[in-house]
Amino acid sequence: MMIKIAVDVMGGDYAPQEIIKGIEKARDTYNNLEFNLFGSVEKMKSLIQNMERLNLIQADSVITMEDEPVRAVRRKKNSSLVLAAQSVKESKSDVFLSAGNSGAVLAAGIFVIGRIKGIDRPALTTTLPVVNEKQEHDFFTMLDVGANADTKLANLSQFAILGSFYGKYMNHLQNPRIGLLNNGTEFDKGDQLHKQAYEALNNLDEINFIGNVESRELLNGAADIVVTDGFTGNAALKAIEGTALSMLHLIKYEIKQSVLAQMGYLFERNAFHRVGQKMNYQKYGGAVLLGVQKPVIKIHGSSKAETVFYGIKQAKEVVESKLVEKTIDFFTKK
Amino acid sequence: MMIKIAVDVMGGDYAPQEIIKGIEKARDTYNNLEFNLFGSVEKMKSLIQNMERLNLIQADSVITMEDEPVRAVRRKKNSSLVLAAQSVKESKSDVFLSAGNSGAVLAAGIFVIGRIKGIDRPALTTTLPVVNEKQEHDFFTMLDVGANADTKLANLSQFAILGSFYGKYMNHLQNPRIGLLNNGTEFDKGDQLHKQAYEALNNLDEINFIGNVESRELLNGAADIVVTDGFTGNAALKAIEGTALSMLHLIKYEIKQSVLAQMGYLFERNAFHRVGQKMNYQKYGGAVLLGVQKPVIKIHGSSKAETVFYGIKQAKEVVESKLVEKTIDFFTKK
Repeated sequence: MMIKIAVDVMGGDYAPQEIIKGIEKARDTYNNLEFNLFGSVEKMKSLIQNMERLNLIQADSVITMEDEPVRAVRRKKNSSLVLAAQSVKESKSDVFLSAGNSGAVLAAGIFVIGRIKGIDRPALTTTLPVVNEKQEHDFFTMLDVGANADTKLANLSQFAILGSFYGKYMNHLQNPRIGLLNNGTEFDKGDQLHKQAYEALNNLDEINFIGNVESRELLNGAADIVVTDGFTGNAALKAIEGTALSMLHLIKYEIKQSVLAQMGYLFERNAFHRVGQKMNYQKYGGAVLLGVQKPVIKIHGSSKAETVFYGIKQAKEVVESKLVEKTIDFFTKK
Repeated sequence: MMIKIAVDVMGGDYAPQEIIKGIEKARDTYNNLEFNLFGSVEKMKSLIQNMERLNLIQADSVITMEDEPVRAVRRKKNSSLVLAAQSVKESKSDVFLSAGNSGAVLAAGIFVIGRIKGIDRPALTTTLPVVNEKQEHDFFTMLDVGANADTKLANLSQFAILGSFYGKYMNHLQNPRIGLLNNGTEFDKGDQLHKQAYEALNNLDEINFIGNVESRELLNGAADIVVTDGFTGNAALKAIEGTALSMLHLIKYEIKQSVLAQMGYLFERNAFHRVGQKMNYQKYGGAVLLGVQKPVIKIHGSSKAETVFYGIKQAKEVVESKLVEKTIDFFTKK
């Protein structure tokens, strides 16, 4: 079966060039992908090498990073972002992918594609590598990492179920271990919200709740799925990203300070390369918006072709996994 | 003037041995320190090399990690932790230091030593290195990193003032840049609490508020003083610590995988050593509990002699800076 991917080709810092490059690489890699590409047809044509399995659809406007998200989605009906989302809504495409304005992608997911009945607030889901020495677990998935600033108890329970489905169908885990991000591991830790959330998750029969986890242990694989409110999840995710980058920069800087160390680096290039590879969370794709009626993938605004490629790979896997259909089934029967 | 430091010698994973070692090192390094040591006199005597400037005071019990903090502080009146705090309360010592049960150290700060009038909730304050290449800033200080799970607007304003004083008197900054940890840098970012906090800090004449900062930019020196609620601050701090540790382990692990890389490491040892030194936040001491009537220093439960030494150095500096007296003055005049 062909998988149809709707791409907002005009969104992102390096759009449309790098978006097109990533798309062509994915098309050449996987023979079951077909693309509906939304943007300036003229610009797209000038960049595309080979039209195989690419349909170009004209979009007359672009939602920029400066646009107020909700208003832009309501008003710029002919933007590449809204038209791509619309195509998924109308089942002309199976999955929507964008590197554009994050708030607008969320808004298009919620207002154009629509929430799943039973889900009050969709969540952004990100996968990060586990980097401990034992290598028992490869990666972990965290949600919400920023779709919601204000989070209520019911949201956290829904995130836990959405995350558990993600663990089963996307990460292929038999019985994903669900942890609650908290300020200590004991059951009575946290602010009011997280104390209540512990109780609620502990009483959810549908998930394998393993208790509270601390952000210090995330990269050690403390849980397969980390449930968190969007404000704290955003802070933890950005702290991890910032620290990993700072460490790599610092190590390179210190090595440059000495000729001897530079010589040493020649011997170590492979080791550093592997560290870089392992910390390179590009390959895990972008953030998946869970809780809406069709799959939505938000890749980073600064995505280049490689990241676009991995985002598309993830989009393909989300469709193949039937994650969203299974989630809808569950909430319909409930 | 002699500075008198009250130490809970029985608190911490490596107490009393490593606590005593750190104390003796500090005593031998600084000639203006005198110590009131609380614990089992018999055990302390068997470990101490030289009694110079050390007073031993018998404490018949110990607050353990398993004790419920508030109850333990109320009931174990003759514990090393409570007696040390009491000695500061009664002005027999100038500063209280412990590696014991964190919650109990907080409770002793609040209930034995007492809050400063005008401060509703004290805050835990931690200093971390800035690791960007420009090296314009050496470190930044963040509060609250976990004294409070539930934080209100008024608390954040008070933290900003406490932090600003810390920047001036402990970090010797003319005009410390105060940032609010938030999920984006724009003024309208955040949940309800943080949107209101932006407004409140922006209207505080006493501080140099530079706006919102994201956790991704903390190690880049985005602000000198980072104001945050205790729940988010705890998550960001632990994410930074965990990621830094994981990265160092991963690099060492990958280097061990290859003989060539191990050879390279010989040339690079100094560079790695400097990275380790820079990321070694031990030298910044422990967490200072701000907002109570006398200085309180909480060092990590796993502290060995080196960390104890730096905690004592910090205790000395807090007393010398007259930070607490200046904070009390400010809130009294207000």
